[in-house]
Parts: sequence; structure tokens; C-alpha cells
Amino acid sequence: MYKVSIGKKILSANEKYAFENSRILAEQKKLCLNLISSPGSGKTTILARTISELKHDLRIGVIEGDLRTDIDAEKIRATGAPAIQIETGGACHLSAAQISRGLSSLPIKDLDLVFIENVGNLVCPSAFELGENAKIVVLSVPEGDDKPAKYPGIFARSKVLLINKIDMLTTGALVDFDVERVKADARKLNQNIMIFPVSAKTGEGMPAWYDWLKDSVHNLS
Amino acid sequence: MYKVSIGKKILSANEKYAFENSRILAEQKKLCLNLISSPGSGKTTILARTISELKHDLRIGVIEGDLRTDIDAEKIRATGAPAIQIETGGACHLSAAQISRGLSSLPIKDLDLVFIENVGNLVCPSAFELGENAKIVVLSVPEGDDKPAKYPGIFARSKVLLINKIDMLTTGALVDFDVERVKADARKLNQNIMIFPVSAKTGEGMPAWYDWLKDSVHNLS
Repeated sequence: MYKVSIGKKILSANEKYAFENSRILAEQKKLCLNLISSPGSGKTTILARTISELKHDLRIGVIEGDLRTDIDAEKIRATGAPAIQIETGGACHLSAAQISRGLSSLPIKDLDLVFIENVGNLVCPSAFELGENAKIVVLSVPEGDDKPAKYPGIFARSKVLLINKIDMLTTGALVDFDVERVKADARKLNQNIMIFPVSAKTGEGMPAWYDWLKDSVHNLS
Repeated sequence: MYKVSIGKKILSANEKYAFENSRILAEQKKLCLNLISSPGSGKTTILARTISELKHDLRIGVIEGDLRTDIDAEKIRATGAPAIQIETGGACHLSAAQISRGLSSLPIKDLDLVFIENVGNLVCPSAFELGENAKIVVLSVPEGDDKPAKYPGIFARSKVLLINKIDMLTTGALVDFDVERVKADARKLNQNIMIFPVSAKTGEGMPAWYDWLKDSVHNLS
């Protein structure tokens, strides 16, 4: 009798593409970061501001993932950066095969850094390697400070946590969010995680994130 | 040669449980509503306020779904309502089999209405029928007004859209959210969707939602 492990087979197909993506990126010494968060935490706004403010420092391209629409790729292209939109149809995460096609559509040779903006979902994207150098998880203040405890997988697997929309801590919005609780809970899951509290709207806290990006790109070359 | 459709087989196992759940609920004339949204849109806060403010009108029980922790069930129990926590481990949605176990752990006979609070995820839970009477999608103001266009599936399949955190439209928070755009985009996908703009924090708009709940329960009996 044969036992066929289907879960394993599917994962392996993804892993094959992920390995090939990481090989291409390493060979060309390009940094690739996979942004993961709930819908609406501000991934696109973070990217648009980062690209604009680092335009003299880093050449950045973006692979955008969404179930439908190219709203996000359009926002990125408005900054002047190259952006590829991948519509997943109904799928809840990007696959390494999709990233493989995205990478071949971007002018990789002319870039320092490729961001992948994954489908808005705090669960599924964390389980699929894309060949990236690191995962970046974004948690925004109005989502609440219990999220590392409730969705531990992605916080355990990310190199960086961006706590976004910190402007809401001081503008009178009705939010319950203890930054120190989030930091402590995230570090319980992942003691080396880098944490940057930022507001992509006001720019507060963004310079520390930019420094980390520049250092990470320079460490590759 | 045999062709085995695995996707279909998995769906059918879920559908069998979903059908049985809906049969039990219909037989006992209990309303069951499946709340779906991104993490942090305010599902638990909506439920806690709804239970407290309707305590003289409706007997409500809750099945809570999360990857980890029983934080949400504890918040519901603090209102005095019975709540069952289901930890999915890593799974991105509740299954009908889990709801079957949840329903048998709740004192169904003494309830009018069972809420299912699904795992925070705007994608996966929309594809799994649980035997509920209706899906309720929650979208909160800080998530942005492009979400019906970007995540159409759940808006197309829901009977009600709760637009939560409308207090943020007026408290000086830096949010870009056009309520009319959301209504128009949701109705393009689903012309009969009921839309209630609410703030579960301040209570604004909640009475219209309560009236809909009471009418829905009364229409069953």
C-alpha cells in the first residue's frame, strides 16, 4: 500500500520555487523582504513613504499581492518605483511560483531591494516561504495589542515588527493599545525581533526603519 | 484510471457537518450568525456590547475561534453570556466540525441566538459554510475604504456589513475612509446587503443593528 502525503507534496513544490528565488536573489545580491499583516494595517502606505524618502539611497521595486484589483500597484507606481501586481483570485497568500514570475517581470539588475507586499492576512502568508531574506510583520495600533498572543506564528517568524499608526496613540482616537505589552509579547515568541514603532502617515519613527533597511542592503554587498 | 478530486472531498466533509449544524439550529429555531473580519476590526467588542445591551431582549451564546488563547471567550464570559473557545492551532478559519462540537457544548435550548466569532481573516472563513443562517462581515474605519474592492468574496456572501469604529471619522484620527464609497462598492457586489455604520466603543449606530437582530430572531419563531 502506498501512502501519499499530499500536504508535503504541495509544500515541496512551493519550496522548490522558493529555493530558486532565493538563489537568484543571492546571486545578484538583492535584498528581498516579505511584508505580512492584516488588511488595512498600512503596508502600502509604509512602502510608498519608504520609497519616496529613500529615493536617493535605495533603488526599490515592489511585487504586490491582492485577491483582486491593482489599487496597490498603482499607488506604488505613483512614487516612480516599478511595481508588479499579482491578483491571486481567491487565494489567501502569495506563492513562490508567483514571486518567481514577479521577479522576472521586475528590472532586478537595477534594484537594491525588492519588497513583496503579501495578501492582507495575518495567518496564511506566514506558512509559505517565497525565497525572501526576511519577513516583516506590520501590526497597526487600532488592531489592538493582543495580536502577538492571538496570532503567534507570524510574530515568531518575522525579523522585524513595524507597529504602525502610532499617531493614533496621541490624537484622541479611542484605542486600547499598550506598546510595551506588544513588544513584550512579540519578544516572548521571538527574542531577536527588531521592533520599530512608526507612523507612515506622519513619518514619526520611520528614520530608524530606513537605517535598518540601508544597513541590511549594505550588509549584502 | 481513477481521478480523485481531493479539494471536493474536503469540502464535502465540511458541508456534511454544516448541513447537520443547520438542521439542528432550524429544528430548535435558533438563529446563528457567523462574524467574519480582519484581526482587530472589533468583533469581540461588538459582541460584548450587543450582549450587554440586549440582555433583557435576547439570550445569546458565543462560539469563539482563534489560533491561540482564550482571551476573547473570557471577554464574552465577563458579560455573563456562555462562550466556548475553539483554538484552531494554526488553521485560518473555523470548520463546521468545530462548530458542531461548539454547539453541543453550549446550552442551546436556553438561547435565542448563537454568534460564531470566526478567526480574524477576511479571506479563508468566507469559503467555509458552518451551517449558520447568515454571515456578518465587519470592516473597521482604520482598515480603509478600499477593502470591498480588494476582498470581494466575503462582501458578496454576507447578509450584513457592520462598518465599525465610526468614532474615528470625527475624533481627529488620520484616517482616509469614505463611508459612501464602501456602501457603493459593497452593494455592487451584493445589492441586498444590509449596512450598519456603528461604533462598538461609543454605542453610536448600534440600535439599528439591535433592531435587525431582534427582527431576525422573531422571524424564526
